[in-house]
Amino acid sequence: MIIALDAMGGDFAPASTVEGAIFAAKESKHKILLVGPEKIIAEEMLKYHKKYNLQSLNIEIVNATEVIGMDEHPAKAVRQKKDSSLSVCAKLVAAGKADACVSLGNSGAAMAAALFYLKRIDGVLRPAICSPFPTIDGQCIISDSGANMDCKPEHLLQFGIMASIYCEKVFRTEKPRVGIVSVGEEPTKGNEVSLATYEMLKKSGLNFIGNIEGRDISRGKADVVVCDGFVGNVILKFGEGLAETMLKLVKKGFKKHPIAWASLPFLWTALRDLRKKVDYRGYGGAPLLGVDGVCIIGHGSSNGTAVMNAVLAGARAAEHDITKEIKEALQNTKLQ
Amino acid sequence: MIIALDAMGGDFAPASTVEGAIFAAKESKHKILLVGPEKIIAEEMLKYHKKYNLQSLNIEIVNATEVIGMDEHPAKAVRQKKDSSLSVCAKLVAAGKADACVSLGNSGAAMAAALFYLKRIDGVLRPAICSPFPTIDGQCIISDSGANMDCKPEHLLQFGIMASIYCEKVFRTEKPRVGIVSVGEEPTKGNEVSLATYEMLKKSGLNFIGNIEGRDISRGKADVVVCDGFVGNVILKFGEGLAETMLKLVKKGFKKHPIAWASLPFLWTALRDLRKKVDYRGYGGAPLLGVDGVCIIGHGSSNGTAVMNAVLAGARAAEHDITKEIKEALQNTKLQ
Repeated sequence: MIIALDAMGGDFAPASTVEGAIFAAKESKHKILLVGPEKIIAEEMLKYHKKYNLQSLNIEIVNATEVIGMDEHPAKAVRQKKDSSLSVCAKLVAAGKADACVSLGNSGAAMAAALFYLKRIDGVLRPAICSPFPTIDGQCIISDSGANMDCKPEHLLQFGIMASIYCEKVFRTEKPRVGIVSVGEEPTKGNEVSLATYEMLKKSGLNFIGNIEGRDISRGKADVVVCDGFVGNVILKFGEGLAETMLKLVKKGFKKHPIAWASLPFLWTALRDLRKKVDYRGYGGAPLLGVDGVCIIGHGSSNGTAVMNAVLAGARAAEHDITKEIKEALQNTKLQ
Repeated sequence: MIIALDAMGGDFAPASTVEGAIFAAKESKHKILLVGPEKIIAEEMLKYHKKYNLQSLNIEIVNATEVIGMDEHPAKAVRQKKDSSLSVCAKLVAAGKADACVSLGNSGAAMAAALFYLKRIDGVLRPAICSPFPTIDGQCIISDSGANMDCKPEHLLQFGIMASIYCEKVFRTEKPRVGIVSVGEEPTKGNEVSLATYEMLKKSGLNFIGNIEGRDISRGKADVVVCDGFVGNVILKFGEGLAETMLKLVKKGFKKHPIAWASLPFLWTALRDLRKKVDYRGYGGAPLLGVDGVCIIGHGSSNGTAVMNAVLAGARAAEHDITKEIKEALQNTKLQ
């Protein structure tokens, strides 16, 4: 697979993206296109020439003269900066020169670029960001996790269908259990939109398990967690903050019990495993499902490992031809 | 203070409520009215006669012949069962015979009973459940946490005003920092309702700190976290599930490293502190603010300690005359 990576996207780019590209090229057989200002990327790559045999790595620099900043207005920036690293990534996929594009930068702009250059799949009302989230015994997908603020039931239904396909094809989950986020298990509990979505999901042919409450998410009750992008984004970030807070409290708790210091080395190992489990970095980026091409949106604060995982997530989605799968599913399902 | 406790409300009632009443009576000088079927409560109390000098405790049984179940339709049950333990509690407050009512039962029914017997405070559009939530260095209030599913900006504004008063008067927080839950810090980020609420909160005279993201909640960025009851409920339950999952993972992580078992006794102490911190039981119930009288709604799975804390929360709210404070604040604020 050929993956176009926006070398200038992310809080620590291009250091993180170049490192991530090197990691990904070493870890896999995929070709990585590092897209951005040639000179800056080449200079960044040079830092690694002692550690790695760069010539042997399947990495190519693709020049793009402009950069879209984190604070720029998404649609405006994409419209105006046609030669930005992000836009060029999307164009490479649209032209069939790359199988997936990956960005850790301005996620609104990444969505705008995907919509502008890849276009929506015919029949898709709104593309959705489908973020993996760790559960007690695996992971689930939160769909949508931030692309769409105010949603109608038919949007949520499509989020469920698309995420279910992704889960089945990429994660190899048989008959993914699809749940709609609500405030109680009973079908009568919820807000106007969740109640109407419940009825649509019931008739969708998906493996719909009904309402799921907040506490069911990390318990792993559903493989696909359907909600609007406002709720999804709040949940994901709330989880991030709570995990961080809890780890701090565990450490603080230990400090209060001096004798417990003796066990710190062991605790550290356990905490490291835990952090790995709850760390977004291990999960790579989230696919923007519903656009006609693979587009992965990663966490802005991604480090090299996270970038690598986002690149590998893009490759996996492309290998499983997720776009074609969604197109076919949409043809077979009554969507609106 | 005199607190009317719905002895039949909660998953473990009347065992949990009777135990909680005894704990609260021992812990404080408040008078506890245990409301429910006389015979059942008396029998339950008898279990404690060896351990405690029941005569010395300031507890009185108030007979109520009916019970509202967890699955009953809230409004219908309250309308029909006028002599239910819950209804009698609310009536005691309405009649001035108790300073607060507390229920751990069907929370929809508790709201319905409060609205039916206590009525809304003049000018309040919708009462809100204001749940305390632990932060890294204290606690915040999530308002609303489940009473109102689909809200308008003017509802959310009132939730912020009422919770801010509660926070100031009961928690003694000077100028509580009020934030509105959203998906980014920038005032332009959010859904239709959050964006409109932002503008109203800005002009409210409250100590409004703008949008807060999911991750800011447990970081303690705001004292009052404003959101609709759908989002608030999902957040609270999600936090409950995630905390539980993380503790399980820490334990599992330890099991993977046999040598770490040696430190388990120390870890246990740290985890116990942590659990205490994230445990709803320590926080007692949540006040339903906006009704004309103090009404505390607790967690269905409350044990005796949690019931005691809910009773004490009710007493504190009554001592600080939170209802009068809200009435006065509403007169001084432009609300609609």
